Amino acid sequence: MKWKMKAILFLFFCLNWAFLAVVAVGPPICSADLGGECSDAASDDWKGEFFPDIKKIKYEGPSSKNPLSYKWYNANEEILGKKMKDWLRFSVAFWHTFRGTGADPFGAPTKYWPWEDGTNSLAMAKRRMRANFEFINKLGVERWCFHDRDIAPDGKTLAEANANLDEVVALAKELQGTKIHPLWGTAQLFMHPRYMHGAATSSEVGVYAYAAAQVKKAMEVTHYLGGENYVFWGGREGYQSLLNTDMKRELDHLARFFQAAVDWKKKIGFNGTLLIEPKPQEPTKHQYDWDAATATSFLQKYGLTEEFKLNIECNHATLSGHSCFHELETARINGLLGNIDANTGDPQVGWDTDQFMTDIGEATLVMLSVVRNGGLAPGGFNFDAKLRRESTDVEDLFISHISGIDTMARGLRNAAKLIEYGSLDELVRKRYQSFDSEIGALIEAGKADFETLEKNAMEWGEPAVASGKQELAEMIFQSAL
Amino acid sequence: MKWKMKAILFLFFCLNWAFLAVVAVGPPICSADLGGECSDAASDDWKGEFFPDIKKIKYEGPSSKNPLSYKWYNANEEILGKKMKDWLRFSVAFWHTFRGTGADPFGAPTKYWPWEDGTNSLAMAKRRMRANFEFINKLGVERWCFHDRDIAPDGKTLAEANANLDEVVALAKELQGTKIHPLWGTAQLFMHPRYMHGAATSSEVGVYAYAAAQVKKAMEVTHYLGGENYVFWGGREGYQSLLNTDMKRELDHLARFFQAAVDWKKKIGFNGTLLIEPKPQEPTKHQYDWDAATATSFLQKYGLTEEFKLNIECNHATLSGHSCFHELETARINGLLGNIDANTGDPQVGWDTDQFMTDIGEATLVMLSVVRNGGLAPGGFNFDAKLRRESTDVEDLFISHISGIDTMARGLRNAAKLIEYGSLDELVRKRYQSFDSEIGALIEAGKADFETLEKNAMEWGEPAVASGKQELAEMIFQSAL
Amino acid sequence: MKWKMKAILFLFFCLNWAFLAVVAVGPPICSADLGGECSDAASDDWKGEFFPDIKKIKYEGPSSKNPLSYKWYNANEEILGKKMKDWLRFSVAFWHTFRGTGADPFGAPTKYWPWEDGTNSLAMAKRRMRANFEFINKLGVERWCFHDRDIAPDGKTLAEANANLDEVVALAKELQGTKIHPLWGTAQLFMHPRYMHGAATSSEVGVYAYAAAQVKKAMEVTHYLGGENYVFWGGREGYQSLLNTDMKRELDHLARFFQAAVDWKKKIGFNGTLLIEPKPQEPTKHQYDWDAATATSFLQKYGLTEEFKLNIECNHATLSGHSCFHELETARINGLLGNIDANTGDPQVGWDTDQFMTDIGEATLVMLSVVRNGGLAPGGFNFDAKLRRESTDVEDLFISHISGIDTMARGLRNAAKLIEYGSLDELVRKRYQSFDSEIGALIEAGKADFETLEKNAMEWGEPAVASGKQELAEMIFQSAL
Amino acid sequence: MKWKMKAILFLFFCLNWAFLAVVAVGPPICSADLGGECSDAASDDWKGEFFPDIKKIKYEGPSSKNPLSYKWYNANEEILGKKMKDWLRFSVAFWHTFRGTGADPFGAPTKYWPWEDGTNSLAMAKRRMRANFEFINKLGVERWCFHDRDIAPDGKTLAEANANLDEVVALAKELQGTKIHPLWGTAQLFMHPRYMHGAATSSEVGVYAYAAAQVKKAMEVTHYLGGENYVFWGGREGYQSLLNTDMKRELDHLARFFQAAVDWKKKIGFNGTLLIEPKPQEPTKHQYDWDAATATSFLQKYGLTEEFKLNIECNHATLSGHSCFHELETARINGLLGNIDANTGDPQVGWDTDQFMTDIGEATLVMLSVVRNGGLAPGGFNFDAKLRRESTDVEDLFISHISGIDTMARGLRNAAKLIEYGSLDELVRKRYQSFDSEIGALIEAGKADFETLEKNAMEWGEPAVASGKQELAEMIFQSAL
Repeated sequence: MKWKMKAILFLFFCLNWAFLAVVAVGPPICSADLGGECSDAASDDWKGEFFPDIKKIKYEGPSSKNPLSYKWYNANEEILGKKMKDWLRFSVAFWHTFRGTGADPFGAPTKYWPWEDGTNSLAMAKRRMRANFEFINKLGVERWCFHDRDIAPDGKTLAEANANLDEVVALAKELQGTKIHPLWGTAQLFMHPRYMHGAATSSEVGVYAYAAAQVKKAMEVTHYLGGENYVFWGGREGYQSLLNTDMKRELDHLARFFQAAVDWKKKIGFNGTLLIEPKPQEPTKHQYDWDAATATSFLQKYGLTEEFKLNIECNHATLSGHSCFHELETARINGLLGNIDANTGDPQVGWDTDQFMTDIGEATLVMLSVVRNGGLAPGGFNFDAKLRRESTDVEDLFISHISGIDTMARGLRNAAKLIEYGSLDELVRKRYQSFDSEIGALIEAGKADFETLEKNAMEWGEPAVASGKQELAEMIFQSAL
Repeated sequence: MKWKMKAILFLFFCLNWAFLAVVAVGPPICSADLGGECSDAASDDWKGEFFPDIKKIKYEGPSSKNPLSYKWYNANEEILGKKMKDWLRFSVAFWHTFRGTGADPFGAPTKYWPWEDGTNSLAMAKRRMRANFEFINKLGVERWCFHDRDIAPDGKTLAEANANLDEVVALAKELQGTKIHPLWGTAQLFMHPRYMHGAATSSEVGVYAYAAAQVKKAMEVTHYLGGENYVFWGGREGYQSLLNTDMKRELDHLARFFQAAVDWKKKIGFNGTLLIEPKPQEPTKHQYDWDAATATSFLQKYGLTEEFKLNIECNHATLSGHSCFHELETARINGLLGNIDANTGDPQVGWDTDQFMTDIGEATLVMLSVVRNGGLAPGGFNFDAKLRRESTDVEDLFISHISGIDTMARGLRNAAKLIEYGSLDELVRKRYQSFDSEIGALIEAGKADFETLEKNAMEWGEPAVASGKQELAEMIFQSAL
Repeated sequence: MKWKMKAILFLFFCLNWAFLAVVAVGPPICSADLGGECSDAASDDWKGEFFPDIKKIKYEGPSSKNPLSYKWYNANEEILGKKMKDWLRFSVAFWHTFRGTGADPFGAPTKYWPWEDGTNSLAMAKRRMRANFEFINKLGVERWCFHDRDIAPDGKTLAEANANLDEVVALAKELQGTKIHPLWGTAQLFMHPRYMHGAATSSEVGVYAYAAAQVKKAMEVTHYLGGENYVFWGGREGYQSLLNTDMKRELDHLARFFQAAVDWKKKIGFNGTLLIEPKPQEPTKHQYDWDAATATSFLQKYGLTEEFKLNIECNHATLSGHSCFHELETARINGLLGNIDANTGDPQVGWDTDQFMTDIGEATLVMLSVVRNGGLAPGGFNFDAKLRRESTDVEDLFISHISGIDTMARGLRNAAKLIEYGSLDELVRKRYQSFDSEIGALIEAGKADFETLEKNAMEWGEPAVASGKQELAEMIFQSAL
Repeated sequence: MKWKMKAILFLFFCLNWAFLAVVAVGPPICSADLGGECSDAASDDWKGEFFPDIKKIKYEGPSSKNPLSYKWYNANEEILGKKMKDWLRFSVAFWHTFRGTGADPFGAPTKYWPWEDGTNSLAMAKRRMRANFEFINKLGVERWCFHDRDIAPDGKTLAEANANLDEVVALAKELQGTKIHPLWGTAQLFMHPRYMHGAATSSEVGVYAYAAAQVKKAMEVTHYLGGENYVFWGGREGYQSLLNTDMKRELDHLARFFQAAVDWKKKIGFNGTLLIEPKPQEPTKHQYDWDAATATSFLQKYGLTEEFKLNIECNHATLSGHSCFHELETARINGLLGNIDANTGDPQVGWDTDQFMTDIGEATLVMLSVVRNGGLAPGGFNFDAKLRRESTDVEDLFISHISGIDTMARGLRNAAKLIEYGSLDELVRKRYQSFDSEIGALIEAGKADFETLEKNAMEWGEPAVASGKQELAEMIFQSAL
């Protein structure tokens, strides 16, 4: 068939207009000031450091004006009985940090990192992996997260793609050393056009099988690398229009897929947590894992609550009409809080901006939930956050992560202050104290029927109702910032 | 203290603040053109018809230009094997139609119906009830819905309130005759300040008991009147701020309350369906019954799915970020579609406008869901919709209901066309036909593990993926309008 | 007809429906713990202090745990060369603080202040005014804002209403003393049903005239009290549906109305600024003063930019899809920033919640804009913010204002840090430095035509484009908090 | 410099991940059923028709079930005194129809049209242009719209890009014949990374010049092709963060740029209308042309209202919080309604979906505005609408356009019914009739001062206020559908 020949041609000529835009752009910027050596060709390997002018990021305290230092994150300092790094368990997201190009629906890529040679070759994938670990080490973080297709090139066949993945994963294993490992891994089931109707919820059975094969492999390599969790983000598990969709059949398929994933996890001896990542929409009009409650309902219906937890992302929370704190608390009180994608959105924008969180109030609420949860382990904080399209300096990669890390660290410090001071907890405890009574106990035990309650109501007359003290609660909260 | 005496006075003049608002403004307008006789005092009764110039509304067909006729709703005409009235089971909402004052957060009441005398007396409540049944009869509808406190005045004590309710309900029973009865009843647990922190989720145990007593009574009178369902709208079951809220404890209380309602229903032999009405927010920042999926998750967690169904309101659906069709389909495929609050919101407005639905496209989608559900009985369509504040003529009450009824009727006709024509169903069936295969059956039976699927994927190579044909589906849909 | 007599009765008992709502519910709660003496009747006057247990609020510094103290606002401390009180010029909003009842679209009033006697009498209006000035004095603020109908009872006729207003205003003048005066006054043109279609944009000419008379009087009393500004909030100047609206005619009427206000201002020698307060919607579906840009466009079209400035409200800003900072900056760079309604909304809620601002990041941005504007005088900060419905203690009135004042004060301190540190300004200056060139000057002078520019572009080749450094800017900003 | 060599390498290896995704995809689908011959290489030219199985689309009337026919659009039929085609003046958008790839922020391209050879060569650009005109002819439309960079490949230099453009434009001129010409042309100033900070509002003077050169050329070729208008969509004229932005300076630059465009238009004798296309955001957080009122305000401030009109896009309208009808009416009553981008968004989605409009209610409102405007000429309706990513059949291109054309045609027919029936206009006229009086005339002439009005108000007493009749207006409206 002619298309085979054409597929090869495509490797040279590149159908995609977005690519073409890139080509026209001109020279990649080899930031001279960073001293990096520009890459010349796919076959040459990179000499020396990737970030030669960036030293390991150190804690310098709040008075430091050095953008390349931590002002609030002091990894080994103890807060509420645990080291900061054990509360926070930060992770770098490979895809945003090393595969983010700056492209958006109206614009071509804008990033030209010095180590990129313009290929998606295996050699380039390995070089990029080395940059990743230098980055992680300089940041002083111990975890990373990845998609299969972002760390290694796809292949003409599944077998070839798997072989590529194995080769890159072997290098990653080596580079990880003893201290670093994946917070979680996942399979990229949304980029390739075969997934345009979904993966586990595709209308095509062949796609369902292909997705299964991809997840099977991704779980294996996550396990091999010592990953602590495995995430499902159902980016295209949803619909664009109900007019052409059999929603019930799609949801049934999704549940079958998840059950098969549980079985496979057990078969290979992977003990990591399986995580579902709620998001309301984008790219779909409706994603089946809309928010924490919707994902919970799905897990309940199909008997999967024992096997899955939730990965709450703050930007997804706000897109679904909730505060991040709400989504975390909803997951927590259902015993499903497993991991956090630490980012934030723009409150006036209707799509996922995946910005690094810099709001200290929001970070304090996030950490309050985490502390109440007794921490997140084996989950942690993944920086599912990307540089703005217009941020094109290599140092911006560091500045953004430092800002995100410091914000969460400051949130932890504030949450500790709130908890140690105690007046907010006390305010809440007191609000409900009328239930710390005989009748309250009866109600909570499910033993107070309507007749009993009516009798009480008749006897008591008009019930007293105290002020909710919301402004006082807000004042206490803000005092801790 | 004098306030006690005053309080008593107010019990006669003022018990319902909304009502007072009406009176306060000035003279009621006795629309001369309607020929109605103006009420003089609470003790006098109304003479003659309430709507003397409005005749019984008749079906005149699409070419009629008479605003006081049906152009699409022909009650006894058969569509898809059932009479229109049996598909549609319309109900008038007492509160919007007879207690709506036109007040909004920035404005005083604007409606001065001729039969209102400016009191919330029992006499006035009864007169209003007679107006209600004249309205229902002239509209040619067979069902109505009510809140306890809207049909009868509150009392100084629960006992007095119950006695008031009994008196009005006895009249309603008589006026209902044999053909009319409630689609559903409910208790108003959000207006009185005692419910400011919620009813079943109040932080005060006394309020919980009071709410139980009120629901107990409301279920009794609904049963007595031959009501087919009982609805819970948890308007204040939610939170204004998570900072001062114990969400887990509140949700536990809510579940206990619902269980007690189930027990009571059984005890009194009421066979009607219990319905939860999802709404995302307003008046609370977060209502616990956010949307269909959230309410489902709650019912699942507390083992209540057998006992409850959902009452989907279109305006609530869009406020929660979903189409009404989505919420209906979500309820339907979970076996929980029980009733519809037929209204609509303004797509650019962030609060509940409770407008009569006049969009024939949306109505067609609603009816498509209803037909797929085999109808809604014992549920139906409640017009939880109100006149705009600026619509102050008595005839506007009729025009708005006729418009809403005709819109749903037109939706039913269109849905029937779509179903009879069949090409949309066929388009959907074909999309998923690859699952109507051996491997598809294996997957759907939960017997396809990842190894089998990977083997298939390897053998099959790149899967074919057909066009989603969304534009064609939309074209077919629009052709039916 | 009897209703006339009743109408008169109601004029004594009921004129303000909101008030009635308060009374209707039951006995006011005389908070014993506050030691206040409960009011008995409209004719008795209040003995002693209104807030006997609240002392004058003092600055105690950030380490204080006393909710009834300032931690950040130190009125006479100098920041950036001005006293804090001169930058901040705080004002108490009479309506929210003294007429807010806690009613919402689904609920009756919840507040029972001890000094309220359940009437809307002149005597009550005066007592309330005395409470207002005790509150202002204890808070240590020097300004207040008012609506005509909130400070004095309406009348059966305009003349009676004006007489009532005069009587209350005379007392207010006396209570103001030499230090206190209105930041601004305004007329309430949205509550009464006559304004249901708008005031200056009503479809009824009689309403237009009535509104003119009301504004005429409100401007007079504002002038008499030494008010520094006069505000127009066109709550119902807009439409509910374009189907029944002649938008062009309504906008023309609005412009004529504003011009007449300018003429009147000059005639009476009032030198205060006239302010338009943008809001996108609620209660209307579309308010003609949608946002700062829309209000500006209106002023430009009708030649009113010299006579009006804008009163930016943060909650209105976010409802219109903008950050508060955006609206302030838009007003500022158009020379139209006149005043700030200092409040905030809930980012997940689609209606005006009018909460006290407690977000220190947002407050810092607000103050940055104010400092760039050289302050707001003769404008200031009006706390157009209300207690949550569930906050029912008298002390909540103080806590909320203290919280709002401290938040703005903290914002000012942070803005000063940012400005003194200078690195954010420097970052912005550098971004645009390529325009600080010969060709840049030519462009900015309007002298660079397309041919010249094309010639340059051809010569220069691909232009260099530097990183936007957004993450660095955010890091610098957060460091100042 | 090494980058040159690399640029060549890029042509082979393609830095961009999105492209890479494409490559892995596999065979383009040469729809056998369409009989088209698949392209083999860039150098070969296409044989025969591009859409061999699609005949010219004909009007078959509402009862037709043929998806490839018009049911409502009958080009030469007269409605309200004009041919349908003269009211509607449809235009095909080259970019969506011929350069849309189906890529989205989470997914690679999905479309493989048979005539595409995977290059962005001049040869390919010409072949594509031939496909464009076959499409236009088969659709029976007489206008098209284009971006410079979409119809012709960019170049290594501006000169090369211009030469490429000239070559393609020469062919287009020839293919246009006498009947077809551009509704408008424009320059693509948002895709290339040089425009990441904006074009006329970039922080880099070199980018400003480059943009000027590009617009200069695009205006020339639009003029050469007989274009009737020229459009500015300022996709990146806005900001991502105010923290790093000098908004005032950027707006001044934008105004200077527009003035230079006006000068250039006059210099080359181009008489077409210049159009600004409002959009609130995306890709920027804030676009300076937020909505019709904001764009108007900008034009007013800089004295440009005589030279520019607005191109209203329905999806942009709803993203800015307005109905499309509102934006059209706002433009119309300011004399600025110049053109319509006929598309629609998803009401529950926060980004631009650019769907073909299929809502007949919305289309009727759009046409009502157009008829009131006396038509749009020299503007028209541009289908700035794209196939869903999942719609991958060639016939979907036709189905979507037919659906869009029929929807607007049906809207025109409905609007005509409404206007001919007259009762809606009558309802509006009557609402304002109190202004058709002596005092009304005085007010509208600006001669009614506050003293006169107060005198009237005093004399008249409480003004009568009639019902707004919104539900009746909605009923009349829906009857016309």
